[in-house]
Order: sequence, then structure tokens, then C-alpha cells
Amino acid sequence: MKAHYQTQGFLIVLSGPSGVGKGTVCAALRKEMPELCYSVSATTRQPRAGEIDGVNYFFKTVEEFKEMLEREELIEWAQYVGNYYGTPRRFVEETLASGKDVLLEIDVQGAHQVKQRFPHGIFIFLLPPTLEDLKDRIIKRGTETKTTLAHRLNAAAEEFKQIHEYDYVVINDEVEKACDRIKSIIKAEHCRVDRLVMTE
Amino acid sequence: MKAHYQTQGFLIVLSGPSGVGKGTVCAALRKEMPELCYSVSATTRQPRAGEIDGVNYFFKTVEEFKEMLEREELIEWAQYVGNYYGTPRRFVEETLASGKDVLLEIDVQGAHQVKQRFPHGIFIFLLPPTLEDLKDRIIKRGTETKTTLAHRLNAAAEEFKQIHEYDYVVINDEVEKACDRIKSIIKAEHCRVDRLVMTE
Repeated sequence: MKAHYQTQGFLIVLSGPSGVGKGTVCAALRKEMPELCYSVSATTRQPRAGEIDGVNYFFKTVEEFKEMLEREELIEWAQYVGNYYGTPRRFVEETLASGKDVLLEIDVQGAHQVKQRFPHGIFIFLLPPTLEDLKDRIIKRGTETKTTLAHRLNAAAEEFKQIHEYDYVVINDEVEKACDRIKSIIKAEHCRVDRLVMTE
Repeated sequence: MKAHYQTQGFLIVLSGPSGVGKGTVCAALRKEMPELCYSVSATTRQPRAGEIDGVNYFFKTVEEFKEMLEREELIEWAQYVGNYYGTPRRFVEETLASGKDVLLEIDVQGAHQVKQRFPHGIFIFLLPPTLEDLKDRIIKRGTETKTTLAHRLNAAAEEFKQIHEYDYVVINDEVEKACDRIKSIIKAEHCRVDRLVMTE
């Protein structure tokens, strides 16, 4: 008898309201867990200075993106300010099959779509310690008018209601602590009884 | 709105076959996580040199132990080589209610009893990397005859079949690694979505 953990990877979906710090936590996590494979999104928006195709995004024309949609090559997608964004299915599926974990950082609507297709993924909701904190963070970004700030806070309040679709909630009080909690979640999930394989 | 994790503690049951290293892993874990409250067993066996009542065990007479049983003051119990051993309910319940996590290191039969009473506990099965490893460890203890060794290995094989009653399996390849996995499990469980409390 030999006991070992299953080598099939799993999908880790990090989501939460806009302004909660998903990007910062995700970047810290990728630094600390380089073995995690980060899913690169496809987008129709123009590359910004320094952005590399296939690293930051897969840059697509609107036509190419629509073709991907028709071929069901995206596991979630959305449109923001006239541009399309989506998660290519192929990378996710191939990476999981190769035994590696895939990290996806997406908004709440995207996470909801992914949940339909990957119900066994690990869904983590990143939460601000207080609504006041979220407000402060959005203001600090300095890109919001008063109207869009109110709109964002309302959207966040609506998104909190979807928390029951998630497996874990990580409070982003400090990036390091949040990152540490997510690392523990990933390690723990690898020890789940249904991931054990015993061979002769 | 203020988000925080629930303050109710939870019961962590560390179990596994005899000889797998439960005691060693448990001791290492208590050292690294002094905030874990360790449940002290009651026993009718005689104290050994240096053992302190209430620290190593609650030492009881057979009559006292039987009274505890009658009053349902034990959440699990067993008899080994003429002595009774059991886990007092009161300490477990009071510690959990005070918001602390309780660690219980017990055999597979005991864990099965606890599972009936605390279905929401976190059940961790400690597993040797191979059956050969388990054999080596039991032999190294040097307290077994060939007959009891065979008996123990058979018992272990039977106990492996109960693994599906557990939430997690931790392979005890190295004490430090096993300990680290259990720490991650405890941290991750604190982030479960049903442990989140949002107050106004």
C-alpha cells in the first residue's frame, strides 16, 4: 500500500467586489506560490505600454473574441466600457489535467459563470474588513466620481449577497494575512479525503 | 458593515492507526499552536512517574469512571488492557463555547464515537506513507511480539477502511510536514463561508 495525494490540479477562483484588493492579493500569492498557474484573460482592449500578449492578456480583435464565444472557448466573459474580457477554457482545462492548480482572479459575475462549469472549483470571496474600508480604497484609486463611487458601493453590497455560493471567505485586512489564509486553503484542500489515492 | 470570523471554536479530531505517529505529530502541533486547547483524557490506569493529574490525564478510580459513563460525561471511551480511557465532555464543550479550538488525539474507534456527537468537528486521519513504514515504526517501538505486530497491521488495514468518515487525510511522511498540513487545515476551516459573521 502506498498513500499519496491525487495529482489532478484544481481551480482556485479568487473573487470579490471591485476595490477589495483582488489584484494586489493575487500578485502577492503568485509571488509566494510560483507553482500556481495563473489564467491569462483574453480581451479586446488595446494593450497598454509594456503589456505583453500571452502574459498580461491575450489581445484579440472583436471578431476573434466573438468567434471564441461562438466556439464556447471561454468559461466566463463580460463586457466593460465597450471592451470584452474572458477566460479561455483551453488553458484552464489543460493545466488542470497536467496536475497543476489554476488561479483565476475574476469579478463576482465571472465567478458565478465559472461556478456553473466548474462546481468543484474552490471559490474564495475576498472581503474588506468593513464597508468603510472598501470606500476608502476606491477613493484612494482616485478614478471615481461621487456618482460612480455610490454605484460601486451599491454593487458591492449586492455582491456580498452572493457569498453563499463560495466555499471560503478571506478578509483582506492585510495583504500578507489574506495571502497566508489563501495559501492555507489551497494546502488544506489538497489534504481533503477525496483527493487521497492508495495504490498497491 | 463589519466582517469578522465567528468566535465559536471547533473540535479537531486527530486520529489514525496505532503506530502512525499521532502522539508525535500532536505534540509538535501543540508546540506550534499553543492557542489550541488539548483535551486531557480520563483514565483508570495508575499514574506513571512524573505524570500530573489534570495535565497528562485525569486519574480516576474504576468507580468514578463508571459514574462518569452513567452520567454521560464522556464523549468517547474504550478499555485497553484492563484500564478505561475516555474523553470528558465538559472540558470539550466549555472550551468550544469560550471560542477556542479543541484538539483531540484519539484512536479510530474513539473518533467514530466522537463523530456521532460532534458531526461538525474536523476529522483528520493520519496515514503512514506506506504500510511498510507503519510496520517499521511499530517494530522500532520494540514493544511488540510477532503475533501482536501482525494483529496491529491487520487492525490498521481495517481502520483504513473508515477513512471516508473523515474530512482530511494527512500523510505523515515527516512530522514537520504533517504538522504544517494540519495547521493549514485549521486555518482554512476558520475561513469557511459558514463561519463568517457580518454585523452592522
